[in-house]
Amino acid sequence: MLQAKIDITLRKTVADPQGLTIKHALESLGYQNLADVRMGKLVTIKLDTGDKQAAEADIKEMCQKLLANPIIEDYSFTISEE
Amino acid sequence: MLQAKIDITLRKTVADPQGLTIKHALESLGYQNLADVRMGKLVTIKLDTGDKQAAEADIKEMCQKLLANPIIEDYSFTISEE
Repeated sequence: MLQAKIDITLRKTVADPQGLTIKHALESLGYQNLADVRMGKLVTIKLDTGDKQAAEADIKEMCQKLLANPIIEDYSFTISEE
Repeated sequence: MLQAKIDITLRKTVADPQGLTIKHALESLGYQNLADVRMGKLVTIKLDTGDKQAAEADIKEMCQKLLANPIIEDYSFTISEE
């Protein structure tokens, strides 16, 4: 069993209103040293396989086909044994 | 400048309909070896400080106060130099 952890983040040039809202909320709670807050997605996929190389190729394809929007999002992932 | 990467995930006992929908979508694309898909949030916070210890305490507090819902969510974070 392998586990993939996929981080999907908005590209730096894309505005992130959700992150900005969190930043304002944190500032109103008294945290004044925030330079930037960005919101992203974390997808965890457990795969019924032991073949790490095939899993890497599959996860990359899943990101490109379905999980991430390549126009506005970047993705990165790590795969580990479960 | 420090950067905190915060993973917020649903607790294992909490149902994750969004993850299930992604699982079904991936299966319909032909990926048949998926054991589980879970959806979480990734918050990236840049802090205007060099004090890692204080930053860790702040981030933990932010998670407890605002970012995560401790009843249904777990959080973990890493802090690195920018």
